Amino acid sequence: MSIVVVGSVAYDTVTTPYGSAEDTLGGAATFFSVAASYFCPVQVVGVVGDDFSDDDVAVFSAHGIDTEGIERKPGRSFRWGGKYSQNLNERATLFTELNVFEEFDPELPPAYRSASHVFLANIAPQLQLSVLGQVDAPQLVALDTMNYWIEGARDALIEVLGRIDILVINDEEARQLADEYNLVKAAEIIMEMGPSAIVIKRGEHGATAFLGDDVFSVPGFPLRKLADPTGAGDTFAGGFMGHLARSGEHGPDALRRAIVAGSVMASFCVEAFSLDGIRHLDEDQIAARYRAFQDLTRFGDL
Amino acid sequence: MSIVVVGSVAYDTVTTPYGSAEDTLGGAATFFSVAASYFCPVQVVGVVGDDFSDDDVAVFSAHGIDTEGIERKPGRSFRWGGKYSQNLNERATLFTELNVFEEFDPELPPAYRSASHVFLANIAPQLQLSVLGQVDAPQLVALDTMNYWIEGARDALIEVLGRIDILVINDEEARQLADEYNLVKAAEIIMEMGPSAIVIKRGEHGATAFLGDDVFSVPGFPLRKLADPTGAGDTFAGGFMGHLARSGEHGPDALRRAIVAGSVMASFCVEAFSLDGIRHLDEDQIAARYRAFQDLTRFGDL
Repeated sequence: MSIVVVGSVAYDTVTTPYGSAEDTLGGAATFFSVAASYFCPVQVVGVVGDDFSDDDVAVFSAHGIDTEGIERKPGRSFRWGGKYSQNLNERATLFTELNVFEEFDPELPPAYRSASHVFLANIAPQLQLSVLGQVDAPQLVALDTMNYWIEGARDALIEVLGRIDILVINDEEARQLADEYNLVKAAEIIMEMGPSAIVIKRGEHGATAFLGDDVFSVPGFPLRKLADPTGAGDTFAGGFMGHLARSGEHGPDALRRAIVAGSVMASFCVEAFSLDGIRHLDEDQIAARYRAFQDLTRFGDL
Repeated sequence: MSIVVVGSVAYDTVTTPYGSAEDTLGGAATFFSVAASYFCPVQVVGVVGDDFSDDDVAVFSAHGIDTEGIERKPGRSFRWGGKYSQNLNERATLFTELNVFEEFDPELPPAYRSASHVFLANIAPQLQLSVLGQVDAPQLVALDTMNYWIEGARDALIEVLGRIDILVINDEEARQLADEYNLVKAAEIIMEMGPSAIVIKRGEHGATAFLGDDVFSVPGFPLRKLADPTGAGDTFAGGFMGHLARSGEHGPDALRRAIVAGSVMASFCVEAFSLDGIRHLDEDQIAARYRAFQDLTRFGDL
């Protein structure tokens, strides 16, 4: 089992009510691959500039992540700057410098093409389609997207949705994609577009998943210490896909456990800036937080 | 076991994205007592005007609710009008006519004084204190309040908080009462004011409870049909207190089950206007929805 992930590798400048960080390692593919690496081998596809530091390359290699698919091009790496509101659920983008990401044209190394699992992080649907065309026969493909593509590249997005298994998306995006406020109905509308499962990320409120007729919901983990939600959704997706790939199962029970594994990883992510919350974990910590989710949510018969 | 509840009995005029209702039965004590009546005997304390209809009295008697403590005074009953936003989580008050409620001075009939459980719904803390002075030795007292009293009657509220066991409150109110945004820390601050447990209602996102060191969270129930959230919080409290009283236990496991019972009742409440969602339930429907919450939230080991 192995996962190919395609997405951004970036430097983030972030201000939250709890502090700030400048030009720290970020990007959807980065958060995803580090989170997933605790569960199974990961191969990452992305592009960085010649400013990408050896220390940041080392973050990937320390987790055994295959970076052959990260192209290094002349110029600066993708940079994003944002500032969060007091409740951390809203954020303003202060700047987006696409830099080398602007001409990103993902090309998979031959060793990547036999991946069992594929995660298409939030990039142009046309590029997501290009990646799908380069993998042989993955068992499971999941996709993230955002309002920018839902509005601006809807046709291509609909095309790629018809070819994937699981959509991982936040609640506002689900409502926008389906043009329906009620999430139960929105999930049904989206499942008719192709995916057999919709996993809806709800930030501090947890996640709700529609798996055909099965519905699963897990609350957010009540944290005493919150630092920075940047990358939490990608980290969730990494834990989710990593756990699915490791289990080798794709049924409702496997999806439920994987959603909790994703929630576990996301809960670590938000406790620190950049990747600091998920870089230095071990299996015991992950297992303990998973058990804490079990303690958080258990209740007896009526 | 029996519960005394004190609070408003009112007529509501409500507009939501899904419809509207004019001058329909409402009020915190009404929603609470009907919800609790499915679990244990309820005695209600309130005041209505001479416009209060026999049909509405019959709603109480049909559920075996003791209404000896509802005073009937000359004048009009309390009336509230509100309009909800598209997401149902925000609402604007269009009018509040206190009418006979303005001079409400709760007086408990002698038969009420030996109640095992007391719920002080959202009224002036001074009146909540007055009720507490009229009960003999309840096993458990819970209280709801709102921003109006947190801002305008803080000293009296702090006094009553020092004499109760469980605070049932929404997330914004908890943050305001504690002057702390982080809910984990806010709960700790509030527990130092007196209550041994804080149950935080989060609307469509469910409920989170801090029971000393124990934390429990249950998601909201994903509903295809939403009509009107009015009274959902009071209905939650009714199911919660009713289940606690019936079980006769107050430990963490009993509180967890009671919180799910409250969530079950609230999920029925929001499916219809006024009390229509909770008036005609039976034990089988409640048990089935409770099992649906178990199905919604179960997941296996890592």
